[in-house]
Amino acid sequence: MTPFDLLDRIGQATHDGLGITRESYGEGESAALTLLTQEAEAMGLAAETDRAGNLWLRIAADRRDAPAVVIGSHVDSVPQGGNYDGLAGVVAGIAVLQALAADWQSLPPLRVLALRGEESAWYGRAYVGSLALLGKLPAAALALRHRTGTGTLGEALARCGADVAAIGRGEPMLPVRVAAYLELHIEQGPVMVARGWPVAAVTGIRGNLRHNRVRCLGETGHSGAVPRWLRHDAVLAVAQLLARMDEHWRVLLQMGMDLVMTAGIFTTPAASHAVSVIPGEVQFSFEVRSQDAETLRRFHALLKQECETVAAERGVRFEFDEPVASAPATMDEGWIRRFESAGAGLGQPLERLPSGAGHDAAVFAAAGIPSAMLFVRNAHGSHNPHEALAREDLDAGIAVLRDAVASLRADPPVGAIAPASLTAEAAP
Amino acid sequence: MTPFDLLDRIGQATHDGLGITRESYGEGESAALTLLTQEAEAMGLAAETDRAGNLWLRIAADRRDAPAVVIGSHVDSVPQGGNYDGLAGVVAGIAVLQALAADWQSLPPLRVLALRGEESAWYGRAYVGSLALLGKLPAAALALRHRTGTGTLGEALARCGADVAAIGRGEPMLPVRVAAYLELHIEQGPVMVARGWPVAAVTGIRGNLRHNRVRCLGETGHSGAVPRWLRHDAVLAVAQLLARMDEHWRVLLQMGMDLVMTAGIFTTPAASHAVSVIPGEVQFSFEVRSQDAETLRRFHALLKQECETVAAERGVRFEFDEPVASAPATMDEGWIRRFESAGAGLGQPLERLPSGAGHDAAVFAAAGIPSAMLFVRNAHGSHNPHEALAREDLDAGIAVLRDAVASLRADPPVGAIAPASLTAEAAP
Repeated sequence: MTPFDLLDRIGQATHDGLGITRESYGEGESAALTLLTQEAEAMGLAAETDRAGNLWLRIAADRRDAPAVVIGSHVDSVPQGGNYDGLAGVVAGIAVLQALAADWQSLPPLRVLALRGEESAWYGRAYVGSLALLGKLPAAALALRHRTGTGTLGEALARCGADVAAIGRGEPMLPVRVAAYLELHIEQGPVMVARGWPVAAVTGIRGNLRHNRVRCLGETGHSGAVPRWLRHDAVLAVAQLLARMDEHWRVLLQMGMDLVMTAGIFTTPAASHAVSVIPGEVQFSFEVRSQDAETLRRFHALLKQECETVAAERGVRFEFDEPVASAPATMDEGWIRRFESAGAGLGQPLERLPSGAGHDAAVFAAAGIPSAMLFVRNAHGSHNPHEALAREDLDAGIAVLRDAVASLRADPPVGAIAPASLTAEAAP
Repeated sequence: MTPFDLLDRIGQATHDGLGITRESYGEGESAALTLLTQEAEAMGLAAETDRAGNLWLRIAADRRDAPAVVIGSHVDSVPQGGNYDGLAGVVAGIAVLQALAADWQSLPPLRVLALRGEESAWYGRAYVGSLALLGKLPAAALALRHRTGTGTLGEALARCGADVAAIGRGEPMLPVRVAAYLELHIEQGPVMVARGWPVAAVTGIRGNLRHNRVRCLGETGHSGAVPRWLRHDAVLAVAQLLARMDEHWRVLLQMGMDLVMTAGIFTTPAASHAVSVIPGEVQFSFEVRSQDAETLRRFHALLKQECETVAAERGVRFEFDEPVASAPATMDEGWIRRFESAGAGLGQPLERLPSGAGHDAAVFAAAGIPSAMLFVRNAHGSHNPHEALAREDLDAGIAVLRDAVASLRADPPVGAIAPASLTAEAAP
């Protein structure tokens, strides 16, 4: 089966009628891991599950414990999302492993890592699989509730066989030392389509700062009988807040800052809202992303300040959950150059591009592991069923990744091993 | 049982733990009608249900078919609403009937009417009970779906024993000719509490124009990867729209217009929204109320115009359902004067007040029936569980209503009968 056919097959198995739904630590994600395992074993690869529930694949005969080059990505999706966000990188890793299998002894150990739990849409927390693996998932995250309100992340991890107690203690549980973490991923923005780049090297990853749930509390009342000056309308308060933040955003972009802002969730309470009731409550999410940590901090402070202004003007109040932050990450320059050399060798010079979206590669980079990413062209963004990856663009990305890894034969990296504290042997 | 105790008892029976829930053509509404019937029959009153499912009470011995003075209001509530909105007027009617029972032959026939289906919160349509009774409910309304999406208004009417076919044909189904329709209701705004008025006479009723469901359609996308200029964010579009309309509202009030505006419902799709997804769809409601029909028309036109502007600026589009309108209504001057005389006689001069909320009285007035309303003082507005009606204010309102009706002995109205087309005898 070609890499693209494998993608297609898993997509068909995890389509819920409206889009691809591979829930973190849930049914669709597990189904995808099972199909990947079957296909890998049919190719003669060996499959193992780590203590955080992630899947590792290797050439069966390769039992060396030298630091490994890990090619990974995630298999989960947002609800009704697309097929390629995440999964394309796992399939690409398998293709590289297969392509280099004949001559594995001349290369460092290679591993493919299929991560669970990258999408925050299910439990309000991103990168759960990679954070748990590296012993970096805050214990409090285990108590996060599923988006439907029923069940916790810890319960879902347990159902997938993960060692929840060890994750809660922050035990690193990497089964191998890691020389480098490489991830191929679809671009989730429109830049590569607009510029005609099939493959690009990623320079760094935007950090983000999120509130999954902000509540604005006003006062309900009869929509016909309360005059404007006595109203405490939560919808108009949040509308005004977001309109102001949108205007700040526009101005900051003009000043040259890197910034995106999103309120993806905005709801009045389904049980009690009505056309003829002044809305007394709104829940909304607020997320800001930037390549610059200081911009994140300052825009967040601006949000808080505007909330105070709106609260005072309108007699409402705002309640914030704890913000969740991911720091911006820089990709490994040595690997970016290997990608570029491989691209040049294939007659396909690579451009460099920052990543607007977050990725597990940022978690590995933050842990001190040299990490790098390739983007492949994709139309219609991601997190929706209209993701569009061309078969030949996936193949072009795989070729660059394959040749960059193969270049280690002639030119091994210097001293690139994982920090001792992150190896399985060094775990407490 | 005192009127207030009867109110309390029905409130206890229809409290769902969070508030009063008496669903239109549903369980709580039917339970209230059953309790009212039991209490009325214990008082020696006769109870009958009309072909639209509304309850009529009369002095058992009074079988005259002369035009009747009808004292009515509704028994349904919004979800998790309060106990007094509607029900207080029915209980007041029963108290007046009881107070005047001994001498009924010296008065025109009196009837109490307990209406169903006044609140639009359940099927997106207000005044269903009174419109059906008068043959004025548009047949299309029978297909309106319940707020949960399951079941239609027509089905709910049928479950309550209503003659749905006749309602669909627009048959008037008043069981008596109506000389006047009188309604006591809690004030749903804060004016009477602020000014210290226990009872007031209503001059007229604000009309309204509503869209139960407007959709704004943009484009979903990854929240980190799409730059601002390529976004079509439905939440920010609607936030901007509402912030603009709110500002227009403020200016129009300063110009002296009568206007309130409410977007009581605002939701991103629960099945697919997420913190990290640019919202591609918002559904919201939009309602405007005014005592002036021209103001309603012009503010609605302004909404459409602003939607076009926002749509063009942001690359989104708006889809509107059919607007639902209720015309402003004027109360009968003769009855307002009877109320004022009664108040003066009780040492309680009445002030006059417009009604911001809509009422069944507006439906009767629109059908050419002399209609009038009394407001009684109530704290914390309505459509919420915190409605607060004092026992003595209810009693004061009942006394005014009783004495105004009793004044018909000395001073009967001239030629006040229902238009022939509205009587049961004249129905096709």
